Amino acid sequence: MSPVITLTSDWGLRDHYVAAVKGAIISRLPEATIIDISHQISPYNLKQGSFILRNAYPAFPPGTIHIVGINTEESERTPHIALLHNGQYFIGTDNGIFTLMFDSLPEKIIELEITQDSGFFTFSTRDRFVKAAVHIAKGEPLEALGNLRTDLNALISMKSQVNGNTIAGRVIYTDNYENVFLNITLDELEEAGNKRKFSLNIKGRKHQVNQLRSAYTDVPDGEIAVIPSSTGFIEIAINHGNAASLLGLHTDDVVLIEFDN
Amino acid sequence: MSPVITLTSDWGLRDHYVAAVKGAIISRLPEATIIDISHQISPYNLKQGSFILRNAYPAFPPGTIHIVGINTEESERTPHIALLHNGQYFIGTDNGIFTLMFDSLPEKIIELEITQDSGFFTFSTRDRFVKAAVHIAKGEPLEALGNLRTDLNALISMKSQVNGNTIAGRVIYTDNYENVFLNITLDELEEAGNKRKFSLNIKGRKHQVNQLRSAYTDVPDGEIAVIPSSTGFIEIAINHGNAASLLGLHTDDVVLIEFDN
Amino acid sequence: MSPVITLTSDWGLRDHYVAAVKGAIISRLPEATIIDISHQISPYNLKQGSFILRNAYPAFPPGTIHIVGINTEESERTPHIALLHNGQYFIGTDNGIFTLMFDSLPEKIIELEITQDSGFFTFSTRDRFVKAAVHIAKGEPLEALGNLRTDLNALISMKSQVNGNTIAGRVIYTDNYENVFLNITLDELEEAGNKRKFSLNIKGRKHQVNQLRSAYTDVPDGEIAVIPSSTGFIEIAINHGNAASLLGLHTDDVVLIEFDN
Repeated sequence: MSPVITLTSDWGLRDHYVAAVKGAIISRLPEATIIDISHQISPYNLKQGSFILRNAYPAFPPGTIHIVGINTEESERTPHIALLHNGQYFIGTDNGIFTLMFDSLPEKIIELEITQDSGFFTFSTRDRFVKAAVHIAKGEPLEALGNLRTDLNALISMKSQVNGNTIAGRVIYTDNYENVFLNITLDELEEAGNKRKFSLNIKGRKHQVNQLRSAYTDVPDGEIAVIPSSTGFIEIAINHGNAASLLGLHTDDVVLIEFDN
Repeated sequence: MSPVITLTSDWGLRDHYVAAVKGAIISRLPEATIIDISHQISPYNLKQGSFILRNAYPAFPPGTIHIVGINTEESERTPHIALLHNGQYFIGTDNGIFTLMFDSLPEKIIELEITQDSGFFTFSTRDRFVKAAVHIAKGEPLEALGNLRTDLNALISMKSQVNGNTIAGRVIYTDNYENVFLNITLDELEEAGNKRKFSLNIKGRKHQVNQLRSAYTDVPDGEIAVIPSSTGFIEIAINHGNAASLLGLHTDDVVLIEFDN
Repeated sequence: MSPVITLTSDWGLRDHYVAAVKGAIISRLPEATIIDISHQISPYNLKQGSFILRNAYPAFPPGTIHIVGINTEESERTPHIALLHNGQYFIGTDNGIFTLMFDSLPEKIIELEITQDSGFFTFSTRDRFVKAAVHIAKGEPLEALGNLRTDLNALISMKSQVNGNTIAGRVIYTDNYENVFLNITLDELEEAGNKRKFSLNIKGRKHQVNQLRSAYTDVPDGEIAVIPSSTGFIEIAINHGNAASLLGLHTDDVVLIEFDN
């Protein structure tokens, strides 16, 4: 079976960066299957990148190698690393993105010691991460890439908070349809709500929504549907409308879920 | 020969949706060749999606499987379906897009009965259409996916109309160069015109263009060229200019082709 | 090893053009590995296209075939051509893009004589370039595609100029992070500077930057870093900022590098 390598970055699709990395991969590993996760992440946006990657990678087969090209600058505090987690590999920089992505520490963390292939230090993805990916794809041991580490740099991800009849959550992502994802899981909502009806309180304005829906079309056009999304998080959508714009919601904004007494 | 599967959607390229579908495909069918038709279709825009897909799919080899992820919500009125048409397969929702795309009924229409792979109902493309595609790619009979149907939901596509010396057409698509495509085929224009010179009447303003051109550069920079495009439809372009903006044309706007007496 | 074919164009990713070309390729050559260089080049922008392609193609393996779909209109003055250069193949139109891309004449230049596959003249990439690419991928001689030529149409690329203590350069490209690339190579800067400190003079305003940096993060957030980029050209960046906007720089603008005495 041909090795699968994915790419995630904030390069956009106009520049030469994506193609240069793909060329570097197939030059060394012609049989590789290369799949783009996303290159449209806002520049330097680790939160956005982690949300996209955490929702994409579980669909990939065991052994897949994910190259993560966001904020790749290496420093003593933020080394280049390769990880093994849930049977898949991740190569990138220890800038906090991996603690945002994973709910537990990876099985294995290696700090890369392999030399990079150019004298330039602005394109580590092409010049170092590809080399590490090819090494792994050829079945060589992860440990040969560098030294074992036991911890990762952590970025704080805000957790939702339950307070009496209210869950206070925050917007973690807005998708192409302007559906809004909260940092509240289905389990958290069900436990706090105990089957009670609920409303959304967005910036002081109350929207009675009563219950979870399973599809956007379970409400009339233009109405709010709160849905347990396929990401595991709760999603606020407006059937055939743009929820983020219409509700004035941006990343990190607070949304209160208020249960009826 | 490895199976070819294409993807068409309104997901955009930033979110995790495209990658999650590709991961789901190669997890089941590592040898698949996956090709994106387009993911930049405007949200919910069946007309735009049908134009893009109808002009892309004929280039693909027999047996290609096209997954269509636009307005995928299933209902009694709009079931999930798999089609065989012109030797290629199409999987999507019977929301009208296929009648916009095809000029005749497909050879075979199957209403999907296979169960989907998750408890979520917002991502049928990943959780149900991929399963159907893999089934077909493995050479199993289409009939095993569900029940035969004999008809499709129809969306009305406006036809051009000939009235005396005039063809009244409408804008059906505007491309990246702002070239404008009308719902008038070369055959229709030639039959109505019978080699006469013609002008365009756009919102009451007359543009004498005289004759069809075969290339944009057959007119000087900044001038209008009317061209039998490779889509089969008539195209209005401005050599090195933006026809849609400069002529104020949007989808569904009327354009009159007026033949000289 | 499966043949590698890349695509570069100004089509964007919404329309059917990219997919139609890929379908045409795999219909003839199912084993091809197709890689997009970029389809986000601004319409008709040969300078931008040449910068992207010249920085992407060296990463590809020998024998790679690059199809270039920008300004493809054929005329007596601008024929369709196939080139061999540095062990890789290029197929496109002799509109000047190749002289912008290469620092020397290609080893071989062939003017295409093969017929195209449709009666339309607006989609040469699909109808003629793919045919030439498949021919080359199958190992047939380049000469069978048409007649040898000895020269290419040249577009003038502005060279940087040294004048006393100053190098006058111009902006040749701005990337997704708004990093600005000048037409000044590392060698040119080092030779003229002879290890002296320097400042940038941008539209009459002087920015003391002193020395080259090797990484964006070698300066504090918000400060200017001048870096020998992996493209071979000098790059002006602002650490975690948007250099092009903040410095008011656009393609072709002049930037003076002034060395201290």
